Amino acid sequence: MTIEQEMEACFEAGIKLGVLYHQFVGTPISADSVNSLETAIEDSIMNQRYVSDIHVEIEGLEPNQYGYDELGGTMLDVELVVMKDGVTVEAVLREEDGYPLMSIENISS
Amino acid sequence: MTIEQEMEACFEAGIKLGVLYHQFVGTPISADSVNSLETAIEDSIMNQRYVSDIHVEIEGLEPNQYGYDELGGTMLDVELVVMKDGVTVEAVLREEDGYPLMSIENISS
Amino acid sequence: MTIEQEMEACFEAGIKLGVLYHQFVGTPISADSVNSLETAIEDSIMNQRYVSDIHVEIEGLEPNQYGYDELGGTMLDVELVVMKDGVTVEAVLREEDGYPLMSIENISS
Amino acid sequence: MTIEQEMEACFEAGIKLGVLYHQFVGTPISADSVNSLETAIEDSIMNQRYVSDIHVEIEGLEPNQYGYDELGGTMLDVELVVMKDGVTVEAVLREEDGYPLMSIENISS
Repeated sequence: MTIEQEMEACFEAGIKLGVLYHQFVGTPISADSVNSLETAIEDSIMNQRYVSDIHVEIEGLEPNQYGYDELGGTMLDVELVVMKDGVTVEAVLREEDGYPLMSIENISS
Repeated sequence: MTIEQEMEACFEAGIKLGVLYHQFVGTPISADSVNSLETAIEDSIMNQRYVSDIHVEIEGLEPNQYGYDELGGTMLDVELVVMKDGVTVEAVLREEDGYPLMSIENISS
Repeated sequence: MTIEQEMEACFEAGIKLGVLYHQFVGTPISADSVNSLETAIEDSIMNQRYVSDIHVEIEGLEPNQYGYDELGGTMLDVELVVMKDGVTVEAVLREEDGYPLMSIENISS
Repeated sequence: MTIEQEMEACFEAGIKLGVLYHQFVGTPISADSVNSLETAIEDSIMNQRYVSDIHVEIEGLEPNQYGYDELGGTMLDVELVVMKDGVTVEAVLREEDGYPLMSIENISS
């Protein structure tokens, strides 16, 4: 395993979290539609290159006066696994200090 | 029923189709994820004010060399029903001459 | 001028506000980038059919610990003019009671 | 410079390109609005953490029958520089074989 391959796998993991966030943030959401949105996000990101696993949870809805909210970044709790050229990267998107932080959890090969 | 109420219902129908289109266009999609994306789009738009029914179909995927496509506007076939103040508007988003045309199908009260 | 033409012009105005909102909400923004984002939103929506004028103002940024915010719907103050088949519709997107309300201001022909 | 720091800088570069792509793809665009959209994309991404430089070019518009197009991924030519903890990563988004490929060009520290 070369260091370059590890860097490229980290790059790919970053791409996927950035895609996920800015594709879906803003989606109208309520308790009734949380599950289908979680599933659709997982399924859509699984289509992308090198994604081997993903788990998405949405929490913290604060419905407005009309009974719904919009998906915000800090509502997302995402665990992503990317595999490229034998390198496995686990990365997460998770609220920390009010910020939707993306970070690498583990790299292995 | 006043004419003003009919105009407002048409305005609301337009909003919903515009929202749907620009929230979801660009989503990575494949044959495996069509159904969950259709469901998530329907569920999310149902959250919005005055939406009483919606049906979304996605067709015409052309997978790239990595086996997926991105949702494009002309892939969407949407039937939407908006009800506001007793006025019902049926509107559609449907490819016509290569353009993703949004139009009003029927207004009743 | 038929009533049908007035309804279609209202429908078109709704589309444009829905497009604008869900295309741009989520964009990273700071005091330094407000002006260029306002201009880009105006220019992009002017491309759409029947849009004859638009003015976009973004207000109320609350920068996070890293000095930026994301464009939220309630930051947007939009005045839009749509003309179709001789009907002119003025519509706005403006925060009201914490909700990013879209409404018709005037219809003339 | 540790290898871990280099990986994190690559991760951050990936995030930014994913964000850019899925925030702006779908935007209505014409020859008249290319420049303001390029500037707004650059300014918005410059807001994000660790971004030290970015250059965006949009090419290859194919206007529809109404005189505009939508921003597609393969129209984007992006050069991005991310600096984190003394590591500099240069990454690009550029059409290759009809695919909007994101890749790392250079890493230095």
